[in-house]
Amino acid sequence: MLTPNLHYAELKDSYLFARIAEKTAAYCEGHPGTYLLRMGIGDVSQPLCPAVIAALHEAVEDQAHKERFHGYLPECGAPFLRESIAAYYGKRGVAVAPEEVFVSGGASDELGHILDLFDPGAAALIPEPAYPAYVDANVMSGRRIAHLPTGRAQGFLPEPEAVPGAELIYLCSPNNPTGAVYTRAQLRQWVEYAHAHKACIIYDAAYEAYIRSAALPRSIFEIAGAETCAIEVNSFSKTAGFTGVRCSWVIVPRALMQDGISLHRLWKRRQATKYNGTSYIVQRGAAAVFTPAGQQQVQRDIDAYMENAVMIRDALEVSGVFSTGGTHAPYVWMQCPHGMRSWDCFDSLLKRFGIISAPGAGFGAQGEGWLRFSSFGSRETIEKAAKRLADMDWDAFAVFAGADVRL
Amino acid sequence: MLTPNLHYAELKDSYLFARIAEKTAAYCEGHPGTYLLRMGIGDVSQPLCPAVIAALHEAVEDQAHKERFHGYLPECGAPFLRESIAAYYGKRGVAVAPEEVFVSGGASDELGHILDLFDPGAAALIPEPAYPAYVDANVMSGRRIAHLPTGRAQGFLPEPEAVPGAELIYLCSPNNPTGAVYTRAQLRQWVEYAHAHKACIIYDAAYEAYIRSAALPRSIFEIAGAETCAIEVNSFSKTAGFTGVRCSWVIVPRALMQDGISLHRLWKRRQATKYNGTSYIVQRGAAAVFTPAGQQQVQRDIDAYMENAVMIRDALEVSGVFSTGGTHAPYVWMQCPHGMRSWDCFDSLLKRFGIISAPGAGFGAQGEGWLRFSSFGSRETIEKAAKRLADMDWDAFAVFAGADVRL
Repeated sequence: MLTPNLHYAELKDSYLFARIAEKTAAYCEGHPGTYLLRMGIGDVSQPLCPAVIAALHEAVEDQAHKERFHGYLPECGAPFLRESIAAYYGKRGVAVAPEEVFVSGGASDELGHILDLFDPGAAALIPEPAYPAYVDANVMSGRRIAHLPTGRAQGFLPEPEAVPGAELIYLCSPNNPTGAVYTRAQLRQWVEYAHAHKACIIYDAAYEAYIRSAALPRSIFEIAGAETCAIEVNSFSKTAGFTGVRCSWVIVPRALMQDGISLHRLWKRRQATKYNGTSYIVQRGAAAVFTPAGQQQVQRDIDAYMENAVMIRDALEVSGVFSTGGTHAPYVWMQCPHGMRSWDCFDSLLKRFGIISAPGAGFGAQGEGWLRFSSFGSRETIEKAAKRLADMDWDAFAVFAGADVRL
Repeated sequence: MLTPNLHYAELKDSYLFARIAEKTAAYCEGHPGTYLLRMGIGDVSQPLCPAVIAALHEAVEDQAHKERFHGYLPECGAPFLRESIAAYYGKRGVAVAPEEVFVSGGASDELGHILDLFDPGAAALIPEPAYPAYVDANVMSGRRIAHLPTGRAQGFLPEPEAVPGAELIYLCSPNNPTGAVYTRAQLRQWVEYAHAHKACIIYDAAYEAYIRSAALPRSIFEIAGAETCAIEVNSFSKTAGFTGVRCSWVIVPRALMQDGISLHRLWKRRQATKYNGTSYIVQRGAAAVFTPAGQQQVQRDIDAYMENAVMIRDALEVSGVFSTGGTHAPYVWMQCPHGMRSWDCFDSLLKRFGIISAPGAGFGAQGEGWLRFSSFGSRETIEKAAKRLADMDWDAFAVFAGADVRL
């Protein structure tokens, strides 16, 4: 008798974003015609920029002609894209070789796949609140997880803390969901910790393009020594609006060893065997992001999203509720009023104000009592939402939602 | 100290197709200007058909306009594509619901990912010769593998054979590399075996479009009872020339249970968490394959490849060497003359005749002494190769290569 993977039973019933989508769909069904202000799932709303569109059309046309047709590409990525990505790091003074760049079809996928590199006994250290896929991918493969709690007092930026045996460290900066960003000094502490404990940092840099200050690190590899203790995952989803196009990359440095074994070689072997490469069309579109025109155009979209974030943050401030994030990150992280629980607050915002958020509890126990707002919506959506939020009477809101409010 | 996944050390030094590519590149470097006849890696050579190209352009254009833009799609596939695929099965009388179709970015990827569904103690049963990724994905995850040897005497189609504890059965029909195809009666035996042993069949149908006889099954789900013991993996790579575009699908029936657990639900949960969906552009292109125009156009390419296969087969017959396959499959499987070893034969064909093949030994021990020829090359390539093969003096070839030939 074949035994299924029983670890799935240890997962929560449903994945956070699936549950948000279900609740939203159920609401829409009951309230046809309602215009919802969607700030839940972090999905972009701007169309792709002209440089990318032109490259995509050109790549499609290549596939129509025998002499320009592309079949299988190298599993680890087309050389033209690996070189563009390496040069992108180079411009900031970070030395990454094209062979250290592995192109793939999505960062969340790779954050799970990367576990293939480690012994199943290796446990994860996950600062929380955290992107739920970190936890779920580890649960599914039966790994132990040490949760490192963080909160408002630490600015949602945990310092290294020794958890024996938990040596697979997930860091996300700018953070999803809290919007917190590590400084160089703080990241240096983590790199030192990883060296001292022979741990490996899995650094999620998906939101690096939203950092507005040159003083803040956009890559873990800006920290000396990271190339021997870290893997970085990045994506075109939020930087260039690729949530529907799908392209990401992983940096596994050649110098990264564990127990005398090259993780770079292991990953290369894994990709050559278990991955057959990223779509040629998609890779051509991704490469266009790094052209001068592409860089200018995607920056315009990033700026627009950040203006959205500021609007949300300002609205919350006006309404007198605490929030953080939204300065170097496209997420605003709000503390629910009067100790309301995340899902209660989510439900009330949806039902009474047509606003969709992401309940903090979905990002781990530390997120209970918080909500995440995404600034990736259209300007119209965010303007409407900001107006409703600025005008909000949170006391009445909480009372109405049945919270135990002592006014 | 973090321990890497030590199972990688149990893998062969390099992956078959990577080694072929390396040997080819090394030869080209030493012999600039040589025109090689590439029949090694099973990569297509025809450009995409007009229906697909039109859909791809349209999808790119959607991504350029705000009101038509698509961000994240459902992780398990866009409804329009899931419905088209379900209808494709329906046309042949096979009942597959759209929710049972999971769209993804490559069949070889999914053949590895599917292992996530099973306990690590579940061992694989792999009839050999076999596509090497089956073996490697299992080795990497530390699973036991029972190799089920087959050979010329059985027509390379093994019957079920009880191997206690090996209940994850890989079947590939039409077979890669041998080109052998199971009949309905033979597949029925495997379905019965799977039920009797509470095993699960992972059915690789990537080459089903090459079957030329209505009497032969193109899907495991043509066999009654398969919906409770089988998963099917299929791909657009060979059917529609998508090796560079990347799209595949997996059928996990709702009725598929193991040990009281729904594998359909497990897979849905896995995809929702560890996969963020297939590119919108790619899915639009894939859906066009199922339009009447698309079906007609891809059939023309399939016919052309099958004419190539017949040319290779006929050439080998003329030259007096034994081969099989090439009738319902795009691969011709040749027995090396005079007991030559696969890699020796590969090297000699490359160095003396500029022909690239795939050494059978790369498909497992049972493939030693055989070579696979792919018919996916251009007509010009195959015509030239067929001429060289038809004129081949295999005795002289073997003597020259240093084989122990008693003429």
